[in-house]
Amino acid sequence: MNRLVGILGGMGPGATVDAMQKLIKNTPAYRDQDHIPMIAVSIPDIPDRTQCILDHSASPLEKMIQYMKILENAGAECIIIPCNTAHYWFNELKLHSRVDMISIIDAACQVIRDKKIANVGLLATTATIKAQIYQRHLAESGIDCHIPPAAEQSAVMESIYAYKSGDAEKAHSLLTPIKDRLLRSGVEKIILGCTELPLILQQEIKHAPENYIDATEALIKKTVEWYFAPIRGNKAAA
Amino acid sequence: MNRLVGILGGMGPGATVDAMQKLIKNTPAYRDQDHIPMIAVSIPDIPDRTQCILDHSASPLEKMIQYMKILENAGAECIIIPCNTAHYWFNELKLHSRVDMISIIDAACQVIRDKKIANVGLLATTATIKAQIYQRHLAESGIDCHIPPAAEQSAVMESIYAYKSGDAEKAHSLLTPIKDRLLRSGVEKIILGCTELPLILQQEIKHAPENYIDATEALIKKTVEWYFAPIRGNKAAA
Repeated sequence: MNRLVGILGGMGPGATVDAMQKLIKNTPAYRDQDHIPMIAVSIPDIPDRTQCILDHSASPLEKMIQYMKILENAGAECIIIPCNTAHYWFNELKLHSRVDMISIIDAACQVIRDKKIANVGLLATTATIKAQIYQRHLAESGIDCHIPPAAEQSAVMESIYAYKSGDAEKAHSLLTPIKDRLLRSGVEKIILGCTELPLILQQEIKHAPENYIDATEALIKKTVEWYFAPIRGNKAAA
Repeated sequence: MNRLVGILGGMGPGATVDAMQKLIKNTPAYRDQDHIPMIAVSIPDIPDRTQCILDHSASPLEKMIQYMKILENAGAECIIIPCNTAHYWFNELKLHSRVDMISIIDAACQVIRDKKIANVGLLATTATIKAQIYQRHLAESGIDCHIPPAAEQSAVMESIYAYKSGDAEKAHSLLTPIKDRLLRSGVEKIILGCTELPLILQQEIKHAPENYIDATEALIKKTVEWYFAPIRGNKAAA
Protein backbone atom coordinates (compact mmCIF):
# COMPACT_ATOMS: atom_id res chain seq x y z
CA MET A 1 0.00 0.00 0.00
CA ASN A 2 1.17 3.54 -0.78
CA ARG A 3 0.83 6.47 1.62
CA LEU A 4 -2.65 6.50 3.08
CA VAL A 5 -4.72 9.68 3.43
CA GLY A 6 -7.11 9.73 6.39
CA ILE A 7 -10.27 11.81 6.21
CA LEU A 8 -11.81 12.80 9.52
CA GLY A 9 -15.31 13.37 8.19
CA GLY A 10 -18.97 13.38 9.10
CA MET A 11 -19.01 17.17 9.58
CA GLY A 12 -21.18 16.83 7.55
CA PRO A 13 -21.32 13.59 5.62
CA GLY A 14 -22.03 15.36 2.31
CA ALA A 15 -18.90 17.47 2.69
CA THR A 16 -16.87 14.32 3.38
CA VAL A 17 -18.03 12.77 0.12
CA ASP A 18 -17.32 16.06 -1.69
CA ALA A 19 -13.74 16.02 -0.39
CA MET A 20 -13.28 12.41 -1.53
CA GLN A 21 -14.74 13.24 -4.94
CA LYS A 22 -12.33 16.17 -5.26
CA LEU A 23 -9.40 13.96 -4.24
CA ILE A 24 -10.31 11.57 -7.07
CA LYS A 25 -10.74 14.40 -9.61
CA ASN A 26 -7.44 16.04 -8.66
CA THR A 27 -5.41 12.84 -9.02
CA PRO A 28 -3.82 12.02 -12.38
CA ALA A 29 -5.07 8.44 -12.80
CA TYR A 30 -5.69 6.09 -15.71
CA ARG A 31 -6.98 3.10 -13.78
CA ASP A 32 -8.27 2.30 -10.28
CA GLN A 33 -4.79 1.39 -9.07
CA ASP A 34 -3.39 4.89 -9.81
CA HIS A 35 -5.67 6.59 -7.29
CA ILE A 36 -4.62 7.91 -3.89
CA PRO A 37 -5.39 5.44 -1.09
CA MET A 38 -7.79 6.93 1.40
CA ILE A 39 -9.74 5.97 4.46
CA ALA A 40 -12.67 8.09 5.56
CA VAL A 41 -14.36 7.99 8.92
CA SER A 42 -17.76 9.65 8.70
CA ILE A 43 -19.33 9.14 12.12
CA PRO A 44 -21.57 12.15 12.41
CA ASP A 45 -22.40 11.97 16.13
CA ILE A 46 -19.67 14.57 16.72
CA PRO A 47 -21.37 17.46 18.58
CA ASP A 48 -22.24 20.53 16.50
CA ARG A 49 -19.12 22.70 16.15
CA THR A 50 -20.94 25.99 15.73
CA GLN A 51 -23.19 25.46 18.76
CA CYS A 52 -20.18 24.63 20.90
CA ILE A 53 -18.26 27.76 19.94
CA LEU A 54 -21.24 30.13 20.19
CA ASP A 55 -23.23 28.60 23.07
CA HIS A 56 -20.60 26.60 24.93
CA SER A 57 -22.58 23.40 24.40
CA ALA A 58 -20.92 19.94 24.27
CA SER A 59 -17.44 20.00 22.77
CA PRO A 60 -16.72 17.95 19.64
CA LEU A 61 -13.03 17.59 20.59
CA GLU A 62 -13.18 14.24 22.38
CA LYS A 63 -15.01 12.46 19.55
CA MET A 64 -12.78 14.08 16.93
CA ILE A 65 -9.72 12.70 18.75
CA GLN A 66 -11.38 9.28 19.07
CA TYR A 67 -12.17 9.09 15.34
CA MET A 68 -8.76 10.49 14.41
CA LYS A 69 -7.25 7.55 16.34
CA ILE A 70 -9.30 5.14 14.20
CA LEU A 71 -7.62 6.67 11.15
CA GLU A 72 -4.16 6.51 12.67
CA ASN A 73 -4.61 2.92 13.82
CA ALA A 74 -5.75 1.99 10.32
CA GLY A 75 -2.45 3.31 8.97
CA ALA A 76 -3.32 6.86 7.84
CA GLU A 77 -0.15 8.92 7.41
CA CYS A 78 -1.81 12.27 6.82
CA ILE A 79 -5.12 13.44 8.24
CA ILE A 80 -7.40 16.06 6.75
CA ILE A 81 -10.70 17.40 8.12
CA PRO A 82 -13.25 18.62 5.57
CA CYS A 83 -14.91 21.02 8.03
CA ASN A 84 -13.70 24.60 8.46
CA THR A 85 -15.34 25.22 11.84
CA ALA A 86 -13.67 22.09 13.28
CA HIS A 87 -10.34 23.84 12.67
CA TYR A 88 -11.06 25.90 15.78
CA TRP A 89 -9.61 22.78 17.51
CA PHE A 90 -6.93 22.11 14.87
CA ASN A 91 -3.94 22.84 17.11
CA GLU A 92 -5.34 20.68 19.90
CA LEU A 93 -5.99 17.84 17.45
CA LYS A 94 -2.45 18.20 16.14
CA LEU A 95 -1.11 17.77 19.66
CA HIS A 96 -2.93 14.43 19.84
CA SER A 97 -1.86 13.24 16.40
CA ARG A 98 1.23 11.25 15.54
CA VAL A 99 0.94 11.81 11.79
CA ASP A 100 0.89 14.73 9.34
CA MET A 101 -2.16 16.99 9.30
CA ILE A 102 -3.05 19.58 6.67
CA SER A 103 -5.18 22.57 7.71
CA ILE A 104 -8.02 23.62 5.41
CA ILE A 105 -7.56 27.21 6.63
CA ASP A 106 -3.84 27.25 5.79
CA ALA A 107 -4.59 25.69 2.40
CA ALA A 108 -7.26 28.27 1.49
CA CYS A 109 -5.21 31.23 2.76
CA GLN A 110 -2.20 30.05 0.77
CA VAL A 111 -4.28 30.09 -2.41
CA ILE A 112 -5.37 33.66 -1.60
CA ARG A 113 -1.77 34.76 -1.04
CA ASP A 114 -0.55 32.93 -4.17
CA LYS A 115 -3.20 34.68 -6.26
CA LYS A 116 -2.18 38.03 -4.70
CA ILE A 117 -5.74 38.82 -3.66
CA ALA A 118 -5.91 41.93 -1.48
CA ASN A 119 -9.62 42.03 -0.81
CA VAL A 120 -11.64 38.89 -0.15
CA GLY A 121 -15.17 38.04 0.98
CA LEU A 122 -15.85 35.29 3.49
CA LEU A 123 -18.84 32.99 3.66
CA ALA A 124 -18.64 30.59 6.60
CA THR A 125 -20.48 29.45 9.70
CA THR A 126 -21.17 32.11 12.31
CA ALA A 127 -18.74 30.29 14.60
CA THR A 128 -15.92 30.37 12.04
CA ILE A 129 -16.53 34.08 11.64
CA LYS A 130 -16.91 34.96 15.33
CA ALA A 131 -13.83 32.91 16.25
CA GLN A 132 -11.93 34.84 13.54
CA ILE A 133 -10.54 31.56 12.19
CA TYR A 134 -9.90 33.06 8.74
CA GLN A 135 -9.61 36.75 9.59
CA ARG A 136 -6.56 36.29 11.84
CA HIS A 137 -4.66 34.36 9.15
CA LEU A 138 -5.57 36.89 6.47
CA ALA A 139 -4.75 39.94 8.61
CA GLU A 140 -1.23 38.56 9.15
CA SER A 141 -0.78 38.72 5.36
CA GLY A 142 -2.39 42.17 5.10
CA ILE A 143 -5.43 40.85 3.26
CA ASP A 144 -8.77 42.63 3.76
CA CYS A 145 -11.54 40.20 4.68
CA HIS A 146 -15.19 41.21 4.26
CA ILE A 147 -17.96 39.39 6.06
CA PRO A 148 -21.73 39.74 5.60
CA PRO A 149 -23.64 42.00 8.02
CA ALA A 150 -25.23 40.25 11.02
CA ALA A 151 -28.70 39.66 9.52
CA GLU A 152 -27.19 38.19 6.37
CA GLN A 153 -24.80 36.07 8.42
CA SER A 154 -27.82 34.54 10.18
CA ALA A 155 -29.20 33.64 6.78
CA VAL A 156 -25.86 32.06 5.77
CA MET A 157 -26.03 29.88 8.88
CA GLU A 158 -29.67 29.04 8.16
CA SER A 159 -28.65 28.05 4.65
CA ILE A 160 -25.92 25.72 5.93
CA TYR A 161 -28.30 24.04 8.38
CA ALA A 162 -30.95 23.78 5.63
CA TYR A 163 -28.46 21.94 3.44
CA LYS A 164 -27.53 19.62 6.30
CA SER A 165 -31.25 18.92 6.83
CA GLY A 166 -31.57 17.80 3.21
CA ASP A 167 -33.21 20.97 1.86
CA ALA A 168 -30.69 21.95 -0.83
CA GLU A 169 -33.21 24.24 -2.53
CA LYS A 170 -33.88 26.35 0.56
CA ALA A 171 -30.13 26.45 1.24
CA HIS A 172 -29.53 27.74 -2.27
CA SER A 173 -32.22 30.41 -2.25
CA LEU A 174 -31.07 31.74 1.13
CA LEU A 175 -27.43 31.96 0.08
CA THR A 176 -27.61 33.28 -3.48
CA PRO A 177 -28.59 36.93 -2.76
CA ILE A 178 -25.93 37.15 -0.03
CA LYS A 179 -23.09 36.00 -2.24
CA ASP A 180 -24.38 38.33 -4.99
CA ARG A 181 -24.24 41.34 -2.65
CA LEU A 182 -20.82 40.31 -1.38
CA LEU A 183 -19.52 40.12 -4.96
CA ARG A 184 -21.11 43.46 -5.87
CA SER A 185 -19.48 45.07 -2.81
CA GLY A 186 -16.16 44.83 -4.66
CA VAL A 187 -14.38 41.82 -3.18
CA GLU A 188 -12.13 40.06 -5.68
CA LYS A 189 -13.25 36.57 -4.68
CA ILE A 190 -15.33 34.84 -2.02
CA ILE A 191 -13.82 32.22 0.28
CA LEU A 192 -16.25 29.32 0.58
CA GLY A 193 -15.13 28.76 4.16
CA CYS A 194 -17.61 26.06 5.15
CA THR A 195 -17.51 22.68 3.40
CA GLU A 196 -21.26 22.72 2.74
CA LEU A 197 -21.00 25.93 0.68
CA PRO A 198 -19.39 24.44 -2.46
CA LEU A 199 -22.30 21.97 -2.47
CA ILE A 200 -24.95 24.66 -2.08
CA LEU A 201 -23.35 26.86 -4.77
CA GLN A 202 -22.36 23.99 -7.09
CA GLN A 203 -23.96 25.54 -10.19
CA GLU A 204 -22.58 29.04 -9.51
CA ILE A 205 -19.05 27.67 -9.10
CA LYS A 206 -19.41 25.77 -12.36
CA HIS A 207 -20.50 28.90 -14.22
CA ALA A 208 -18.12 31.42 -12.60
CA PRO A 209 -15.29 29.54 -10.86
CA GLU A 210 -13.19 32.73 -10.90
CA ASN A 211 -15.44 34.21 -8.20
CA TYR A 212 -14.63 31.63 -5.53
CA ILE A 213 -11.92 30.12 -3.39
CA ASP A 214 -13.26 26.67 -2.53
CA ALA A 215 -11.52 25.79 0.75
CA THR A 216 -12.24 22.07 0.24
CA GLU A 217 -10.60 22.16 -3.18
CA ALA A 218 -7.58 24.00 -1.70
CA LEU A 219 -7.27 21.37 1.04
CA ILE A 220 -7.46 18.56 -1.48
CA LYS A 221 -4.82 20.10 -3.75
CA LYS A 222 -2.45 20.32 -0.78
CA THR A 223 -3.26 16.70 0.03
CA VAL A 224 -2.43 15.56 -3.51
CA GLU A 225 0.86 17.53 -3.20
CA TRP A 226 1.57 15.77 0.10
CA TYR A 227 0.93 12.40 -1.51
CA PHE A 228 3.27 12.98 -4.44
CA ALA A 229 5.97 14.79 -2.43
CA PRO A 230 9.28 12.93 -2.81
CA ILE A 231 10.42 13.25 0.81
CA ARG A 232 8.35 11.86 3.63
CA GLY A 233 7.81 14.52 6.24
CA ASN A 234 5.37 12.75 8.54
CA LYS A 235 5.93 12.66 12.26
CA ALA A 236 5.69 8.84 12.39
CA ALA A 237 8.73 8.49 10.15
CA ALA A 238 10.71 11.22 11.89
CA MET B 1 -21.54 5.65 18.35
CA ASN B 2 -24.39 3.84 16.62
CA ARG B 3 -23.95 0.80 14.39
CA LEU B 4 -21.10 1.42 11.99
CA VAL B 5 -21.27 0.55 8.28
CA GLY B 6 -17.97 -0.44 6.68
CA ILE B 7 -17.43 0.17 2.98
CA LEU B 8 -14.77 -1.96 1.31
CA GLY B 9 -14.12 0.37 -1.59
CA GLY B 10 -11.56 1.49 -4.12
CA MET B 11 -13.02 -0.76 -6.84
CA GLY B 12 -13.13 1.90 -8.20
CA PRO B 13 -12.83 5.01 -6.02
CA GLY B 14 -15.62 6.82 -7.91
CA ALA B 15 -18.02 3.97 -7.22
CA THR B 16 -17.10 4.10 -3.53
CA VAL B 17 -18.02 7.77 -3.35
CA ASP B 18 -21.24 7.06 -5.28
CA ALA B 19 -22.21 4.43 -2.71
CA MET B 20 -21.52 6.85 0.16
CA GLN B 21 -23.52 9.57 -1.58
CA LYS B 22 -26.43 7.16 -2.01
CA LEU B 23 -26.22 6.13 1.66
CA ILE B 24 -26.55 9.80 2.63
CA LYS B 25 -29.46 10.39 0.21
CA ASN B 26 -31.33 7.30 1.37
CA THR B 27 -31.11 8.19 5.07
CA PRO B 28 -33.92 10.23 6.67
CA ALA B 29 -31.83 12.96 8.34
CA TYR B 30 -32.39 16.51 9.49
CA ARG B 31 -28.91 17.26 10.79
CA ASP B 32 -25.41 15.79 10.58
CA GLN B 33 -25.97 13.70 13.69
CA ASP B 34 -28.93 11.80 12.15
CA HIS B 35 -26.76 10.23 9.43
CA ILE B 36 -25.58 6.64 9.34
CA PRO B 37 -22.03 6.27 10.68
CA MET B 38 -19.74 4.89 8.04
CA ILE B 39 -16.11 4.12 7.46
CA ALA B 40 -14.82 3.67 3.96
CA VAL B 41 -11.52 2.14 2.95
CA SER B 42 -10.67 3.10 -0.61
CA ILE B 43 -7.23 1.66 -1.21
CA PRO B 44 -7.27 1.00 -4.91
CA ASP B 45 -4.16 -1.18 -5.23
CA ILE B 46 -6.45 -4.23 -5.18
CA PRO B 47 -5.64 -6.20 -8.36
CA ASP B 48 -8.12 -5.86 -11.24
CA ARG B 49 -11.04 -8.19 -10.62
CA THR B 50 -11.96 -8.71 -14.28
CA GLN B 51 -8.41 -9.51 -15.34
CA CYS B 52 -8.10 -12.07 -12.57
CA ILE B 53 -11.30 -13.90 -13.51
CA LEU B 54 -10.69 -13.83 -17.27
CA ASP B 55 -6.90 -14.15 -17.47
CA HIS B 56 -6.02 -15.76 -14.14
CA SER B 57 -3.80 -12.79 -13.24
CA ALA B 58 -3.09 -11.76 -9.62
CA SER B 59 -6.02 -12.37 -7.28
CA PRO B 60 -7.61 -9.45 -5.43
CA LEU B 61 -8.72 -11.72 -2.56
CA GLU B 62 -5.77 -11.24 -0.22
CA LYS B 63 -5.93 -7.43 -0.32
CA MET B 64 -9.70 -7.45 -0.01
CA ILE B 65 -9.39 -9.52 3.17
CA GLN B 66 -6.64 -7.21 4.47
CA TYR B 67 -8.73 -4.07 3.93
CA MET B 68 -11.86 -5.76 5.28
CA LYS B 69 -9.90 -6.38 8.49
CA ILE B 70 -9.13 -2.63 8.72
CA LEU B 71 -12.90 -2.03 8.69
CA GLU B 72 -13.60 -4.72 11.28
CA ASN B 73 -10.82 -3.51 13.57
CA ALA B 74 -12.23 0.02 13.33
CA GLY B 75 -15.56 -1.28 14.62
CA ALA B 76 -17.58 -1.84 11.44
CA GLU B 77 -20.56 -4.09 12.15
CA CYS B 78 -21.71 -4.57 8.57
CA ILE B 79 -19.53 -4.59 5.48
CA ILE B 80 -20.61 -3.75 1.95
CA ILE B 81 -18.56 -3.83 -1.25
CA PRO B 82 -19.57 -1.38 -4.00
CA CYS B 83 -18.14 -3.57 -6.79
CA ASN B 84 -20.21 -6.27 -8.47
CA THR B 85 -17.27 -8.21 -9.94
CA ALA B 86 -15.65 -8.46 -6.50
CA HIS B 87 -18.69 -10.51 -5.45
CA TYR B 88 -17.12 -13.44 -7.31
CA TRP B 89 -15.19 -13.80 -4.00
CA PHE B 90 -18.12 -12.84 -1.73
CA ASN B 91 -18.49 -16.26 -0.09
CA GLU B 92 -14.76 -16.49 0.59
CA LEU B 93 -14.76 -12.98 2.07
CA LYS B 94 -17.71 -13.94 4.22
CA LEU B 95 -15.76 -16.89 5.60
CA HIS B 96 -13.06 -14.45 6.74
CA SER B 97 -15.46 -11.90 8.21
CA ARG B 98 -16.74 -11.76 11.75
CA VAL B 99 -19.48 -9.21 11.01
CA ASP B 100 -22.56 -8.91 8.79
CA MET B 101 -22.07 -8.57 5.05
CA ILE B 102 -24.67 -7.57 2.46
CA SER B 103 -24.26 -8.80 -1.11
CA ILE B 104 -24.87 -6.33 -3.93
CA ILE B 105 -25.98 -9.25 -6.13
CA ASP B 106 -28.56 -10.46 -3.60
CA ALA B 107 -29.78 -6.89 -3.12
CA ALA B 108 -30.25 -6.25 -6.86
CA CYS B 109 -31.86 -9.65 -7.50
CA GLN B 110 -34.27 -9.09 -4.64
CA VAL B 111 -35.42 -5.83 -6.24
CA ILE B 112 -36.01 -7.69 -9.53
CA ARG B 113 -38.05 -10.38 -7.78
CA ASP B 114 -40.01 -7.82 -5.74
CA LYS B 115 -40.89 -5.95 -8.92
CA LYS B 116 -41.97 -9.25 -10.55
CA ILE B 117 -39.75 -8.66 -13.56
CA ALA B 118 -39.64 -11.71 -15.83
CA ASN B 119 -37.24 -10.46 -18.45
CA VAL B 120 -34.20 -8.38 -17.59
CA GLY B 121 -31.12 -7.07 -19.41
CA LEU B 122 -27.69 -7.14 -17.82
CA LEU B 123 -24.87 -4.64 -18.26
CA ALA B 124 -21.78 -5.62 -16.28
CA THR B 125 -18.07 -6.37 -16.64
CA THR B 126 -17.18 -9.25 -18.94
CA ALA B 127 -15.98 -11.13 -15.85
CA THR B 128 -19.30 -10.70 -14.02
CA ILE B 129 -21.06 -12.00 -17.13
CA LYS B 130 -18.69 -14.91 -17.89
CA ALA B 131 -18.70 -16.00 -14.24
CA GLN B 132 -22.54 -15.96 -14.40
CA ILE B 133 -22.64 -14.01 -11.12
CA TYR B 134 -26.10 -12.61 -11.87
CA GLN B 135 -27.42 -15.22 -14.28
CA ARG B 136 -27.27 -18.07 -11.75
CA HIS B 137 -29.22 -16.09 -9.14
CA LEU B 138 -31.82 -15.01 -11.68
CA ALA B 139 -32.25 -18.48 -13.22
CA GLU B 140 -33.09 -19.86 -9.76
CA SER B 141 -36.05 -17.46 -9.70
CA GLY B 142 -37.04 -18.25 -13.30
CA ILE B 143 -36.06 -14.78 -14.54
CA ASP B 144 -34.78 -14.45 -18.13
CA CYS B 145 -31.50 -12.54 -18.28
CA HIS B 146 -30.35 -11.02 -21.57
CA ILE B 147 -26.74 -10.06 -22.13
CA PRO B 148 -25.25 -8.06 -25.02
CA PRO B 149 -23.64 -10.03 -27.90
CA ALA B 150 -19.85 -10.52 -27.64
CA ALA B 151 -18.78 -7.48 -29.70
CA GLU B 152 -21.06 -5.20 -27.70
CA GLN B 153 -19.89 -6.74 -24.44
CA SER B 154 -16.31 -5.79 -25.39
CA ALA B 155 -17.51 -2.22 -25.83
CA VAL B 156 -19.23 -2.30 -22.41
CA MET B 157 -15.92 -3.35 -20.86
CA GLU B 158 -14.09 -0.67 -22.84
CA SER B 159 -16.61 1.87 -21.55
CA ILE B 160 -16.02 0.82 -17.92
CA TYR B 161 -12.25 1.07 -18.31
CA ALA B 162 -12.64 4.44 -20.07
CA TYR B 163 -14.60 5.74 -17.09
CA LYS B 164 -11.98 4.43 -14.67
CA SER B 165 -9.30 6.19 -16.76
CA GLY B 166 -11.13 9.51 -16.31
CA ASP B 167 -12.72 9.66 -19.78
CA ALA B 168 -16.40 9.87 -18.83
CA GLU B 169 -17.35 11.14 -22.30
CA LYS B 170 -15.86 8.16 -24.14
CA ALA B 171 -17.40 5.84 -21.56
CA HIS B 172 -20.80 7.39 -22.20
CA SER B 173 -20.64 7.32 -25.99
CA LEU B 174 -19.55 3.67 -26.01
CA LEU B 175 -22.31 2.56 -23.67
CA THR B 176 -25.34 4.52 -24.87
CA PRO B 177 -26.07 2.62 -28.13
CA ILE B 178 -25.70 -0.72 -26.34
CA LYS B 179 -28.19 0.10 -23.61
CA ASP B 180 -30.54 1.49 -26.29
CA ARG B 181 -30.42 -1.78 -28.26
CA LEU B 182 -30.87 -3.81 -25.08
CA LEU B 183 -33.95 -1.78 -24.16
CA ARG B 184 -35.36 -2.07 -27.71
CA SER B 185 -34.87 -5.85 -27.59
CA GLY B 186 -37.78 -6.01 -25.18
CA VAL B 187 -36.27 -6.37 -21.71
CA GLU B 188 -38.35 -4.78 -18.97
CA LYS B 189 -35.37 -3.18 -17.22
CA ILE B 190 -31.59 -3.21 -17.33
CA ILE B 191 -29.51 -4.25 -14.33
CA LEU B 192 -26.61 -1.81 -13.92
CA GLY B 193 -24.44 -4.64 -12.63
CA CYS B 194 -21.15 -2.77 -12.39
CA THR B 195 -20.79 0.14 -9.97
CA GLU B 196 -19.28 2.41 -12.64
CA LEU B 197 -22.41 2.12 -14.83
CA PRO B 198 -24.72 4.36 -12.77
CA LEU B 199 -22.00 7.02 -13.03
CA ILE B 200 -21.62 6.62 -16.80
CA LEU B 201 -25.40 6.67 -17.36
CA GLN B 202 -26.17 9.31 -14.71
CA GLN B 203 -28.23 11.50 -17.05
CA GLU B 204 -30.17 8.58 -18.57
CA ILE B 205 -31.09 7.28 -15.10
CA LYS B 206 -32.27 10.75 -14.12
CA HIS B 207 -34.51 10.99 -17.20
CA ALA B 208 -35.85 7.43 -17.23
CA PRO B 209 -35.24 5.79 -13.86
CA GLU B 210 -37.91 3.19 -14.68
CA ASN B 211 -35.53 1.58 -17.20
CA TYR B 212 -32.88 0.61 -14.70
CA ILE B 213 -32.07 -1.47 -11.64
CA ASP B 214 -29.10 0.32 -10.08
CA ALA B 215 -27.30 -2.40 -8.09
CA THR B 216 -25.48 0.19 -5.96
CA GLU B 217 -28.80 1.80 -5.01
CA ALA B 218 -30.24 -1.64 -4.17
CA LEU B 219 -27.23 -2.42 -1.96
CA ILE B 220 -27.53 0.90 -0.17
CA LYS B 221 -31.26 0.48 0.47
CA LYS B 222 -30.55 -2.91 2.09
CA THR B 223 -27.80 -1.26 4.14
CA VAL B 224 -30.18 1.43 5.41
CA GLU B 225 -32.66 -1.36 6.31
CA TRP B 226 -29.88 -3.18 8.17
CA TYR B 227 -29.04 -0.01 10.10
CA PHE B 228 -32.60 0.65 11.21
CA ALA B 229 -33.48 -3.01 11.87
CA PRO B 230 -34.58 -3.41 15.51
CA ILE B 231 -32.81 -6.72 16.17
CA ARG B 232 -29.07 -6.97 15.80
CA GLY B 233 -28.24 -9.91 13.60
CA ASN B 234 -24.51 -9.51 13.30
CA LYS B 235 -22.17 -12.42 13.85
CA ALA B 236 -20.09 -10.56 16.43
CA ALA B 237 -23.09 -10.27 18.74
CA ALA B 238 -24.24 -13.87 18.24
